[in-house]
Amino acid sequence: MDMLWSGWGDPAKAAPLPDSVTGLLRDLLGVTPRESGPAALADIEPPAPALPDKARAALLGAVRAPDALREDAESRIRHTRGKSTPDLLRIRAGEVDDIPAAVVLPGDHDEVLAVLRACAEHGVAAVPFGGGTSVVGGLAPTTKRPFVALDLRRLDRLTAVDEVSRTATLQPGLRGPQAEALLNEKGWTLGHFPQSFEWATVGGFAAARSSGQASAGYGRFDEMVLGLTVATPEGTLETGRAPRSAAGPDLRQLVLGSEGALGVITAVTVRIRPLPSKRIYEGWRFASFEAGTAALRRLAQDGPRPTVLRLSDESETFIGLAQPDAIGSAALPENPGCMAIVGYEGTEEETTARRALAREVLLACDGELVGEEPGDKWEHGRYNAPYLRDALLDAGAFAETLETAAFWSAIPGLYTAVRDALTSTLTEAGTPPLVMCHISHTYENGASLYFTVVSAQGEDAVAHWEPVKRAANDAILAAGGTISHHHGVGTDHRDWYAREIGPLGIRMLQAVKAEVDPSGVLSPGVLIPVR
Amino acid sequence: MDMLWSGWGDPAKAAPLPDSVTGLLRDLLGVTPRESGPAALADIEPPAPALPDKARAALLGAVRAPDALREDAESRIRHTRGKSTPDLLRIRAGEVDDIPAAVVLPGDHDEVLAVLRACAEHGVAAVPFGGGTSVVGGLAPTTKRPFVALDLRRLDRLTAVDEVSRTATLQPGLRGPQAEALLNEKGWTLGHFPQSFEWATVGGFAAARSSGQASAGYGRFDEMVLGLTVATPEGTLETGRAPRSAAGPDLRQLVLGSEGALGVITAVTVRIRPLPSKRIYEGWRFASFEAGTAALRRLAQDGPRPTVLRLSDESETFIGLAQPDAIGSAALPENPGCMAIVGYEGTEEETTARRALAREVLLACDGELVGEEPGDKWEHGRYNAPYLRDALLDAGAFAETLETAAFWSAIPGLYTAVRDALTSTLTEAGTPPLVMCHISHTYENGASLYFTVVSAQGEDAVAHWEPVKRAANDAILAAGGTISHHHGVGTDHRDWYAREIGPLGIRMLQAVKAEVDPSGVLSPGVLIPVR
Repeated sequence: MDMLWSGWGDPAKAAPLPDSVTGLLRDLLGVTPRESGPAALADIEPPAPALPDKARAALLGAVRAPDALREDAESRIRHTRGKSTPDLLRIRAGEVDDIPAAVVLPGDHDEVLAVLRACAEHGVAAVPFGGGTSVVGGLAPTTKRPFVALDLRRLDRLTAVDEVSRTATLQPGLRGPQAEALLNEKGWTLGHFPQSFEWATVGGFAAARSSGQASAGYGRFDEMVLGLTVATPEGTLETGRAPRSAAGPDLRQLVLGSEGALGVITAVTVRIRPLPSKRIYEGWRFASFEAGTAALRRLAQDGPRPTVLRLSDESETFIGLAQPDAIGSAALPENPGCMAIVGYEGTEEETTARRALAREVLLACDGELVGEEPGDKWEHGRYNAPYLRDALLDAGAFAETLETAAFWSAIPGLYTAVRDALTSTLTEAGTPPLVMCHISHTYENGASLYFTVVSAQGEDAVAHWEPVKRAANDAILAAGGTISHHHGVGTDHRDWYAREIGPLGIRMLQAVKAEVDPSGVLSPGVLIPVR
Repeated sequence: MDMLWSGWGDPAKAAPLPDSVTGLLRDLLGVTPRESGPAALADIEPPAPALPDKARAALLGAVRAPDALREDAESRIRHTRGKSTPDLLRIRAGEVDDIPAAVVLPGDHDEVLAVLRACAEHGVAAVPFGGGTSVVGGLAPTTKRPFVALDLRRLDRLTAVDEVSRTATLQPGLRGPQAEALLNEKGWTLGHFPQSFEWATVGGFAAARSSGQASAGYGRFDEMVLGLTVATPEGTLETGRAPRSAAGPDLRQLVLGSEGALGVITAVTVRIRPLPSKRIYEGWRFASFEAGTAALRRLAQDGPRPTVLRLSDESETFIGLAQPDAIGSAALPENPGCMAIVGYEGTEEETTARRALAREVLLACDGELVGEEPGDKWEHGRYNAPYLRDALLDAGAFAETLETAAFWSAIPGLYTAVRDALTSTLTEAGTPPLVMCHISHTYENGASLYFTVVSAQGEDAVAHWEPVKRAANDAILAAGGTISHHHGVGTDHRDWYAREIGPLGIRMLQAVKAEVDPSGVLSPGVLIPVR
């Protein structure tokens, strides 16, 4: 099934906002209903395909399947941009100025290589396309050249399982549920469940250093990856002969996070784990974000580590965004404090033992066990926030998320700085926002902060957001955070990324790119500034 | 204190072999005593310093301390090569053809930068020198240029401790015990105890991806590193704003393992842990290497993970090399099986609980608890094997170690292939060896194998070993192993490394090197083939 072209997910799952929320938006944020809905797909007239004839012929020669090169309007529109809120606002308005000239669907590694060679020879850029879920402009290259969306959906097989080593080799076009299903059949799980799980792909998880909601237990995706096969215009790179090695720099870690700019990932060997027989998610209440943060830190540093560990701040707890389905529906107490979701997955025995130990720690940190209801609600709604955003946009509100990470000692300052930047810029612009935050991922030495902003849209919603996002990015860097913990860099974060890693870091990446992609056809301007 | 120039460690700790071992060497391996000992340091006449006058002046301008540029024979000899067995055999014979032209001792990051700029300007190569413990030719560049040993011993401070985030920033010249002492004072530990611990430095641990004997509990050094400051001829690279990030490739992992070829590490921010109040090491006996391997794999995959986990094969167990001090002294049973050392470090409570659970697993895997005596012996002798090697060389024997890692399913084949390669080539050369092995490090998805070879020396001991080492390296690659799990690549493994990562991988590294070191002065030929 294809994703909704103008929003998120399966159109059948779209749900309008409850009236209570519409009222809240109006009364609290001054949101006024939109006069018109999104453009109709059939009404959008994209610019005519810009693929030069010779390039078309070369691409047709590179792929075998008869429909592996598509230039029709719908295919191209469905591969335009990603799923950030500005992306959606623009596509809903029928803006497709950054549309690909064509969509190409190679069937295996060799076809990917052939496509890249054809692109390099004919000066056509190529943007790898998995689930199309980028929220950082990763699918909109900065280039005047025509470009093709290199859709990897045909590379959708589980090619190897090594049950002794507990590894599996997955092709990049597998979506989260497809990969899980193939592994679950054999009794294994990857344990990677980001919010984009239902639509994002294995190749995208690797290319963008995805992090799932169960990362406390299963680790980030980049920590699961043991081997990668990468196609570049200059040939193939194979990495990962051993789980760990002292044979030079870890080239896997150079490909992970490269967002298509250094090559196309055509196979990913990952660590797999036994399918858990037991899963429990509980709600814990803390008096303040500070108290909850201290509890999470203690579990992350001294253990035992739960499988899922997240903490909403006061406003997110109040709004109940952690359970989007319940938004506005519950009669909330005046000060609900901060809600944490703490989950355990594993064998019955191991889970029970770990939960008992973690409970002691949480109680010692003045946590109050609320029970399984908030955990079940969280589980039920864990992939639904993007649907909620569509409904908010429909209702005339603006809603966007952004995220960062830092060492523990920097977390309080980072939280305040980003919150203040968002609040003050939006308030000054005449649309005071609701800013919510949660700690989404924890590590021994730090954590990530995930912010959600809701406000009225302003005159031109895209232009209205731009200075706000800039202010948030500046605040992140000034407060010692990284410009992204799991969304990635794309084109939206590129300038801040360059500040984060400095001129020499950028030069190192540019040098690698020039070596593997001398014609500069791989996702130009994504991640790495064009030299 | 300086390391013994012609061998390992503190000369006061040298111990001759017990007569029983000398007898064993003679009877079992045909080792005949050497007629002469090592050359005397004072008798070695190195080639006159080859530093051009302009380069000397520039280097003197780059460093402030009066004795920061040394060209005397002893300083240069003490910075010649590393500590592989061929390295020692050659230096004991007075061979110093790969001696540095000078030793330069910068005092801080800016002086390192200035030294590198001076080197780049005057075409003098620079080889970073920490503890001088490389066993892979990492200190002997492949170059006809004069080179300086860039000794980092003056960068020996703990510059920051963040007790909330549990991180510390260490300068690269700190030796293992110095770094531990500085952290222990404040109640923290790094938990990194490789065999070279007493002499190797923090910078070397990072540059060569060191792995310690407690890696099951504390992780490898490259897993402890959170931030790096790197000086290159083109400027400074700062990495690590957060424990984990999705902002592009992980540049830390490009510097880790770069062995001085991409820059000089001048600061390392590491994860620290509370100093354990309890440490227990136990011996467990298994009927076979296969049975023991299965037990280790089960602990590594399903937990609980001990802090120390290693398993000797039958021959290593028999010889008792795991306790070098006891070699030949005990009346061994006819078939002692395979000895594992299983250690736990942490709080009293946590250690007790973890040990109880691990014991259940080990018993279920048909392990037999021998008790704490083998563990205590292992702990007592854990840094002594290099002293034993010196004694073996003195006695006329040849002794060397090599190591690799692979996924679990490849471990049995890798074990047999390397063992056979060592045994057959040495036997064919007329010096049948004793080959011993242990699993030194374990991961969820694989393990490392550490081999020790002892034989008679043959006519020309260095030349005699060369084809044997080549055969072992070939066997490692053919059986799916990585060319090094923790010793590194240096110059000795460079050709096999190039085969392991392939031509495109090498080109990527060469491109980065050309960018940060356009004059090619950083450890030329170490790790990365000269383009």
